[in-house]
Amino acid sequence: MGNRDLIAAAAQSRGLSIPVVAIAAPDEAAAVFPHALPVLDVGAAPYTPGSPDDAGAALALRALEVATSLVKQGAASALVTGPIAKSRLARIGFNQPGQTEFVAEACGITPENAVMMLAGPHLRVVPITVHVALHAVPGLLTAELIRSRSAIAAAALTRDFGVATPRLAVAALNPHAGEDGRMGTEDRDVIVPAIAALQAAGIDARGPLPADTMFHAEARATYDAAICMYHDQALIPIKVLDFDEGVNLTLGLPIIRTSPDHGTAFGIAGQNVARPGATIAAIRMAGECAARRAANAA
Amino acid sequence: MGNRDLIAAAAQSRGLSIPVVAIAAPDEAAAVFPHALPVLDVGAAPYTPGSPDDAGAALALRALEVATSLVKQGAASALVTGPIAKSRLARIGFNQPGQTEFVAEACGITPENAVMMLAGPHLRVVPITVHVALHAVPGLLTAELIRSRSAIAAAALTRDFGVATPRLAVAALNPHAGEDGRMGTEDRDVIVPAIAALQAAGIDARGPLPADTMFHAEARATYDAAICMYHDQALIPIKVLDFDEGVNLTLGLPIIRTSPDHGTAFGIAGQNVARPGATIAAIRMAGECAARRAANAA
Repeated sequence: MGNRDLIAAAAQSRGLSIPVVAIAAPDEAAAVFPHALPVLDVGAAPYTPGSPDDAGAALALRALEVATSLVKQGAASALVTGPIAKSRLARIGFNQPGQTEFVAEACGITPENAVMMLAGPHLRVVPITVHVALHAVPGLLTAELIRSRSAIAAAALTRDFGVATPRLAVAALNPHAGEDGRMGTEDRDVIVPAIAALQAAGIDARGPLPADTMFHAEARATYDAAICMYHDQALIPIKVLDFDEGVNLTLGLPIIRTSPDHGTAFGIAGQNVARPGATIAAIRMAGECAARRAANAA
Repeated sequence: MGNRDLIAAAAQSRGLSIPVVAIAAPDEAAAVFPHALPVLDVGAAPYTPGSPDDAGAALALRALEVATSLVKQGAASALVTGPIAKSRLARIGFNQPGQTEFVAEACGITPENAVMMLAGPHLRVVPITVHVALHAVPGLLTAELIRSRSAIAAAALTRDFGVATPRLAVAALNPHAGEDGRMGTEDRDVIVPAIAALQAAGIDARGPLPADTMFHAEARATYDAAICMYHDQALIPIKVLDFDEGVNLTLGLPIIRTSPDHGTAFGIAGQNVARPGATIAAIRMAGECAARRAANAA
């Protein structure tokens, strides 16, 4: 989604001879891919790498709107979003904190029920809280929040990853899982009840587990996703293990949505040094999830 | 340090033919090692694997006391401690939170100035706060605490690891380093001044860096130690990378002290399944640090 001429200019400026073809609808893409990159034109903007402007922001927003709409309609199987400059989009009237919230609202899902998962070849993690100050984390954690997001993650593991009986490893908030309340009471008073509620609903969840011993190879072999309490608890291990291949999935939506797990990196724009691995992984994972849903529906 | 007969019984129960020889002083050890395991007898206790008792606790405490004393006197070059059952030692009168505090006090160092470092083949980390509830971490962090512990770490990297100009990477407390105060103010108000003070003292420190992108291979190549704000921020990455080889060092002491980075594991005691890697790594690292100090003193 975007603008054919802009993509063609980006390729040309790098000396890449990639034919780029404008299409009018997603169902034309498959026939084009063998010989050219198909782009669904939704607007225009000049090619100004590293210098974000309002025209580029408007094109990005329009692409997000049209793409979300096409996937909702079933005209496309999955949505893969690139990174955006949120402050730039806010200037032109985008009033959501991020693309995740936009897509959730477009799908009629409250943001609380749109759950982030980061997935790579070695690990899948679900941070229960995400972009909040660390001091705010303990107060935001409730048994119901942990239960509901974990249940959404478990359902997605079955629906989109084909895991018949997902095993969830739930991280503790405090060191050594709080040592029975001696180093913080949240593990005992909040996380234990959340796990009990998950188990009562038939979900294979266990914990709270000391987070430092959850992520080596032997530990990872015992679960399908790690439920983490905050941003760095989830992102440190996956970025150690899957730095260039981490995919951000939004679970709990009726549609499939993935994105590469990195930002805009305007500082290296146009230099032909950006690594495409995470974007390729995001596209591949979206395709795999879509194929699984299609197979299950057939 | 310990009891010859107990060690011999432990070897025999596993079917290992390891000669164990009692010695009277550390300087006898080198001559014994080629043909037997030298043990400096400091008491006696029955061999009861997995069933800790007061006699074993008393032996462990006596070994700690004598070993610390011998290293302080210069009769031995370094102290390597095994894991202890703190609650068991407390029953027989041990009134310190752990061995680190005991050794610090024995050396006339306040516990605040005894700094934990975890070191493995891939990473060295220094947690500024350690065994406290996560909710207490932001309130415990001060610029002076971060500065002083980081300075102790930098000095140890030179003295014990031979790094002429140590490079410190200082982790942020909040996601994305707080995004200039939008997700927590501690990075801007506490960590930035600490780094400025370190730089003013001629120490190569930089940050606060978003913690999630600090620990992949390329990032690790840019520093000699990561200064982390709390337990899991430090221990998650090192246990992903160096699970069986993590060594716990106490920096800031006049003596060298290392220990394996794991607990007593009474649950698998006596079954001959425990992995010795971390203890071997702790002994090896103590030896390397001692050799470096000796070479510098010569």
